[in-house]
Amino acid sequence: MPDFWFDDLSPGQTFESPSVIVTREEIIDFAQKFDPNPFHHNQEAARAAGYSDIMASGFHTLSLSFRLFFDLNLWRTAILPSPGLDGIKFIRPLSPGQAIWIRAEVLEAIPSRSKPDQGLLRFRHDTLSDAGEVILTAECLHRLRRRG
Amino acid sequence: MPDFWFDDLSPGQTFESPSVIVTREEIIDFAQKFDPNPFHHNQEAARAAGYSDIMASGFHTLSLSFRLFFDLNLWRTAILPSPGLDGIKFIRPLSPGQAIWIRAEVLEAIPSRSKPDQGLLRFRHDTLSDAGEVILTAECLHRLRRRG
Repeated sequence: MPDFWFDDLSPGQTFESPSVIVTREEIIDFAQKFDPNPFHHNQEAARAAGYSDIMASGFHTLSLSFRLFFDLNLWRTAILPSPGLDGIKFIRPLSPGQAIWIRAEVLEAIPSRSKPDQGLLRFRHDTLSDAGEVILTAECLHRLRRRG
Repeated sequence: MPDFWFDDLSPGQTFESPSVIVTREEIIDFAQKFDPNPFHHNQEAARAAGYSDIMASGFHTLSLSFRLFFDLNLWRTAILPSPGLDGIKFIRPLSPGQAIWIRAEVLEAIPSRSKPDQGLLRFRHDTLSDAGEVILTAECLHRLRRRG
């Protein structure tokens, strides 16, 4: 199992997670806590709005996608808090019972000028369906310690 | 209580939420589900990493901030699914027991060219502490129906 530091990663490296099934209960629970728009937790409201079923809050899909990335466990030692993320696009709805997995690719490795012991990795994170369709895409910044 | 449509909103309009206290249990629960880095749920690990206490996952702060925005209940009729968000910056840690509130400002109103019955509102969402310090900032896209 890898334990990457900033210096071990370079553009083009790609990582893929296993897939996980998202249950109706999880979608409803998240929506009721954080995004209680009826089409995220009430099937009749979703149908009235023209959808075949409820769909996960985009914040739920984003958070779950991050969990799939976290479980890749790419760096245990070098991790530092992330400064943020960018370009989050909700492309397709995530429905109950659907499986998702993620593909994460290093886009850019930026050594810190002010802190020579750390650097920033710009990753593209794609969340995909079992059929390989993109559900969500985002660019995540990961800050890691440097070797030596 | 307002029920805005796309046409009712224009750059500069600002909305503020009440504040809500984030509990230790909520921070730990979210972290264990979506972002189980030890400094998000284990106090000893957080201290060993140089922090005074655990801090909420950025995805938790982001989701909570959206809930505060949702509860402003600005549009009930005109809401359509959002295409995404941008420029999320985790600026300060959110600790257990801390209160947060949000300030949301319309940055841009973009009528859709392909769908004349809808438009996109680019909002800036700032999540603030009770002392008025920015904890998180993001640009959220909200898609709304147009009048008439």
